[in-house]
Amino acid sequence: MSTETSRFVRRIPDGEDRERLTCNDCGYIAYENPKIVVGSVVEVDGKVLLCRRAIQPRHGFWTIPAGYMELGETVEEGARREAQEEACVDLVLDGVLAVYSIARIGQVQILFRARLASPGFAPGPESLEVRLFDWDEIPWDSLAFPSVHWVLEAWREAGSGPLGAPRGNPAEDRRGITPLRSA
Amino acid sequence: MSTETSRFVRRIPDGEDRERLTCNDCGYIAYENPKIVVGSVVEVDGKVLLCRRAIQPRHGFWTIPAGYMELGETVEEGARREAQEEACVDLVLDGVLAVYSIARIGQVQILFRARLASPGFAPGPESLEVRLFDWDEIPWDSLAFPSVHWVLEAWREAGSGPLGAPRGNPAEDRRGITPLRSA
Repeated sequence: MSTETSRFVRRIPDGEDRERLTCNDCGYIAYENPKIVVGSVVEVDGKVLLCRRAIQPRHGFWTIPAGYMELGETVEEGARREAQEEACVDLVLDGVLAVYSIARIGQVQILFRARLASPGFAPGPESLEVRLFDWDEIPWDSLAFPSVHWVLEAWREAGSGPLGAPRGNPAEDRRGITPLRSA
Repeated sequence: MSTETSRFVRRIPDGEDRERLTCNDCGYIAYENPKIVVGSVVEVDGKVLLCRRAIQPRHGFWTIPAGYMELGETVEEGARREAQEEACVDLVLDGVLAVYSIARIGQVQILFRARLASPGFAPGPESLEVRLFDWDEIPWDSLAFPSVHWVLEAWREAGSGPLGAPRGNPAEDRRGITPLRSA
């Protein structure tokens, strides 16, 4: 028995039209699909709740509570779980505010507008700090990802009225291919 | 070299909080995330376009043009690709009509309202037949999946006006856990 011979290779399996990541030993096909990030713009008394990341990538930068959806949950459950984990809050979700595609990294973001089910918040293990920001206080130069900019702008535009159809990527990056600035 | 020794097992990797599918030989973690289905309710002169499936599951049943999103594309590109593949049509997307979670099978469906960019349609290789249906002609008992029911009802409710916030799962199946009827 060798542990050196098990390797995933890219090849076109029978009956398919594109390369798939396949284990050379057992033939297992690890389908590589886009991954779903679920998250929320949380409004508290007209301010927006942001978390400062305690993890890579973008350690120390600010973001909305969001993360990878897990198997076995709904998008709503995932968004509420991430807010619980990162900001120790229990959310009420208003609806889907934006659906973004980050084609560069195979990611789809489903982002809700939300408010707190009960008062109070605190940093979870993946956050250094959780704070409420007035619109004019938002640390635009210290946001973790372009989509955090996008969704905050979308939230501002939507106001507090009924949500319309969800926003998609902004015109300047329709496919989500702009590389992340290293700053 | 043995081909019998490479096996994926479920175990909790270092630094994680839940079991992941891991190759016993090379340690590769095949993260199992929810998969995204993208699709469209396509309206043509007040009728809705449906495809009769030429593939399993649900061979012979009717569905909207929809399928798994691929890496490297946006949700909009995926929805348009699936309609091209299954019904040979070029779509203009109005916006997201519904976002459904099918927790039972780890699936999220992002479904658009759409119309044809140019006239004409035809079955692609995965369809036996493509047809337009008046609302009263829709073959409700021969639809492929519960979510096809859901989204057609959502489309009917939305009418032809501006789209509101996308619909989520209906009250009777909030988590998408009702098993598919075998009929």
